[in-house]
Amino acid sequence: MGASREDAEQVATCLVRANLSGYDSHGVFRLPQHYEWWKAGLLDPAARPVVVGETAFAARVDGRQAFGQVVAGFATRVAIEKARRSGVAVVTAMGSNHVGRLADYAEAIQEAGLIGLLTVNDSGAGQWVVPCGGMEPRLATNPIAMGIPGGTGPGILFDFSTSAAAHGKVRQLLLRGEAAPPGWLIDANGKETTDPAYLFTEPHGALLPAGGHKGYALSLAVEVLAGILSGAGFVRPDPGPEEMNGMFILALDVAWFLPPAEFRAQVDRLTAYVKSARPLPGGEPVHIPGEGSRAEAERRTREGIAIPEQAWARVAGVLKDLGLSGELPN
Amino acid sequence: MGASREDAEQVATCLVRANLSGYDSHGVFRLPQHYEWWKAGLLDPAARPVVVGETAFAARVDGRQAFGQVVAGFATRVAIEKARRSGVAVVTAMGSNHVGRLADYAEAIQEAGLIGLLTVNDSGAGQWVVPCGGMEPRLATNPIAMGIPGGTGPGILFDFSTSAAAHGKVRQLLLRGEAAPPGWLIDANGKETTDPAYLFTEPHGALLPAGGHKGYALSLAVEVLAGILSGAGFVRPDPGPEEMNGMFILALDVAWFLPPAEFRAQVDRLTAYVKSARPLPGGEPVHIPGEGSRAEAERRTREGIAIPEQAWARVAGVLKDLGLSGELPN
Repeated sequence: MGASREDAEQVATCLVRANLSGYDSHGVFRLPQHYEWWKAGLLDPAARPVVVGETAFAARVDGRQAFGQVVAGFATRVAIEKARRSGVAVVTAMGSNHVGRLADYAEAIQEAGLIGLLTVNDSGAGQWVVPCGGMEPRLATNPIAMGIPGGTGPGILFDFSTSAAAHGKVRQLLLRGEAAPPGWLIDANGKETTDPAYLFTEPHGALLPAGGHKGYALSLAVEVLAGILSGAGFVRPDPGPEEMNGMFILALDVAWFLPPAEFRAQVDRLTAYVKSARPLPGGEPVHIPGEGSRAEAERRTREGIAIPEQAWARVAGVLKDLGLSGELPN
Repeated sequence: MGASREDAEQVATCLVRANLSGYDSHGVFRLPQHYEWWKAGLLDPAARPVVVGETAFAARVDGRQAFGQVVAGFATRVAIEKARRSGVAVVTAMGSNHVGRLADYAEAIQEAGLIGLLTVNDSGAGQWVVPCGGMEPRLATNPIAMGIPGGTGPGILFDFSTSAAAHGKVRQLLLRGEAAPPGWLIDANGKETTDPAYLFTEPHGALLPAGGHKGYALSLAVEVLAGILSGAGFVRPDPGPEEMNGMFILALDVAWFLPPAEFRAQVDRLTAYVKSARPLPGGEPVHIPGEGSRAEAERRTREGIAIPEQAWARVAGVLKDLGLSGELPN
């Protein structure tokens, strides 16, 4: 599709990492979507993201319609470099396709020994979520991610939608013929429902915010940070195409507050203490956010990633269109 | 109690503002609590908070056991000054008594035309909240607040606990003999309950995190930002006295990203569009976070603050102990 080898590797790595971590909705099955965007002129795989304005601590990135994984990876590296030099960095990005799993970039900041806080919006599109008390959707699922480095312990790594559930999770329930938990969905009349079909049939229903007014408030903040500060755009009556992301990254060097080794030791003590809580009767031991997907990645690295044949057929179709072999390795 | 007139006014203003905004749990009825802390040697009303370390963008504040409202007000002013000069500021505070309503400081940053993000923990105490999957409480209610300035519109202002509910809200339900909503509480055996008494009788139950793993993740981040970076301390088996707060403040000048007037106009368009969502059948119009408490403050400013006689008797008792009149104005 015209991407450099380096950019293609970045995209492939992000997609496979999502599968490895158990987030198949953000995995290699997204490739046909990227292909459609490219054919529709929404994606320029050869484009290079650029810094269009900067100070010692801040930068604005224009992704110029490059792969979202390439734009987000670039913006994350800018944030890490600036935070190392200046102590703190605030970086925004516009002109980016779907960045994939936000956790990847939070983890990169965590691995650089910094605290990272990241959010993305859909540049004003992707309106699936109602505000509290409303029955018409106005907000995207607007995820928030953080990475905090530990020492010998796991650190803290999370990435969650500010809606009761991510859109893709509801689609998976529909495909599996399962009901959604209460508190996730309303139908087009504003009535609570557990039927995932209401999100995909006209007149369509909507997702509720996570934790009621709490997720709603955070989602508005995401529109401001990732949509307004970046210049990517925020929710409005006439949004642009879906799946263009606006991005906000904050990176903070803990060394400006206490010695990094002492910080890491304290994070280890914190996570060990929280994990020491007795589990619910018959339940799993308490996990720190990030531990579950890391364990899944280790398991799938050993055992492989299960790929439904039908889903792979779509990926293989794209590869063949592009003159590549669509054969799965044995 | 030895406070300067200026500090006493700061504390009184915060307490009365909480009552005006409808948050009676953080209002003037807290005065007897401050008095008890003072008598116990945990509060030094004459102390002055100081900056113990700083860079262009960062500052660490030691409150030296001063009133929390005085420490938080001081740290907030430091953050505003640094953000105006440097574009961004990260300020932490330790040695602070209970800061009251975090929204007050978010609002001060909002009124200064900056974006503010604030969190507090209980310096390791106040463990009322279980981690996901756990039945022993390990975390405090760890609130998060943000202030974002608007133009002619309301802007965005919120302040919520990362637990399903604030501790004080459960106490109010108990006092009124009402049940808690499902999803707030577990008993000492880890079983979900709607009886608020389980939080206050031995063996006591616990609060659940807001939105399950989402509130849990945010609460851990609050322990790191407000507890570790500040030096105030984080949750552990042997925490110090309750109601000492660790604080984290981020203030950001939007002018480094786009012209402030344009930013405010975009926030206005965002909030107007979100408010335009049709309300649920029979429901109130959609509100932007912060509008409800502002409307309540206007109503109570006109109509007065209703004070239960028994609650006032406790306040009046403290005032008389201190040689002041405990009479209510007519």
